[in-house]
Amino acid sequence: MAIAEVVIVPLGTGSTSLSDYVAACEDVLKKEKDVRYQLTPMGTVIEGDLHKIIDTVMKMHEVPFERGAMRVSTTIRIDDKRDKEATMEQKVISVLQKQER
Amino acid sequence: MAIAEVVIVPLGTGSTSLSDYVAACEDVLKKEKDVRYQLTPMGTVIEGDLHKIIDTVMKMHEVPFERGAMRVSTTIRIDDKRDKEATMEQKVISVLQKQER
Amino acid sequence: MAIAEVVIVPLGTGSTSLSDYVAACEDVLKKEKDVRYQLTPMGTVIEGDLHKIIDTVMKMHEVPFERGAMRVSTTIRIDDKRDKEATMEQKVISVLQKQER
Amino acid sequence: MAIAEVVIVPLGTGSTSLSDYVAACEDVLKKEKDVRYQLTPMGTVIEGDLHKIIDTVMKMHEVPFERGAMRVSTTIRIDDKRDKEATMEQKVISVLQKQER
Repeated sequence: MAIAEVVIVPLGTGSTSLSDYVAACEDVLKKEKDVRYQLTPMGTVIEGDLHKIIDTVMKMHEVPFERGAMRVSTTIRIDDKRDKEATMEQKVISVLQKQER
Repeated sequence: MAIAEVVIVPLGTGSTSLSDYVAACEDVLKKEKDVRYQLTPMGTVIEGDLHKIIDTVMKMHEVPFERGAMRVSTTIRIDDKRDKEATMEQKVISVLQKQER
Repeated sequence: MAIAEVVIVPLGTGSTSLSDYVAACEDVLKKEKDVRYQLTPMGTVIEGDLHKIIDTVMKMHEVPFERGAMRVSTTIRIDDKRDKEATMEQKVISVLQKQER
Repeated sequence: MAIAEVVIVPLGTGSTSLSDYVAACEDVLKKEKDVRYQLTPMGTVIEGDLHKIIDTVMKMHEVPFERGAMRVSTTIRIDDKRDKEATMEQKVISVLQKQER
């Protein structure tokens, strides 16, 4: 299991608003049963099997093209920790607990 | 006003756990009165004046060195939208509203 | 055809030097016949079919684990331009030509 | 001394071509005497004092706005190694030497 952040940005669309594209990309995630995800102000965090995450991101990457974009910049940042697994929530809690001390 | 995501990673520390470093970096943010921030599973989102954000990130970047790290990788991704300002929360809400339709 | 930048960083290895890992990751690239690549001071740029690039990056991502790392951070930034293809070299030349004017 | 990669992307400009903007950002770098830089197919690598790099990137970040863009996404990835300094060229050579073995 891995955690990844994905940021998908259509370029040259003529509008500074990207939320329509982001919402359509999220629709792909909604249909995936094997990954969990969380929308943040700067991207989408996905948790699941690494190859399942990559397959899902590749589907999301096609969405802006299907909506007319001709250039898409997609960034996937993978955090793959194999000694001790941590969920998205555990990663945040782990930091917050250390701050409380 | 801008929104940025910052990811600070010490390299060569001998431990796969980074939460101690992240917690110490967050302590810098706690003391800053002029920026708002939000911890995510893959980084920290900061909202405020762009130059204030950058100053704060530069302080955060020093934290792992103060704790003994000899190499630090810091990534700052800035989203600077000047036609219509949006808070961290508004960016997420804007996507969620479009998904409901 | 797409162009991508990949950055693979093992965490918690105890050494600030990453060049052994990077060299081993590049060895994967050397064996791939269908992608072209270029090493930069901050990552590796790969050019080829998008799915071939992703498959190659997934192989590279395993290399630090095979060498003992227990946590790997891999970032893939894809530039997928479908109106007019450009090679790695053409992208740089295009900027340089505009600077000369 | 640090090495950083900067990627500056104007959003909503209506054209998928970014080379005009990149060339104008590079013009800022040309005028800076205290940093060295190298254009790659996926960004610009800058070498110099960390604070000088950040000041320079902040100037580059303004360029697309001066040319009419209303939203700019700027990513700065800093590699700050304080045990043993390495130039941009040394980082690449270090990997190539290990591949030859």
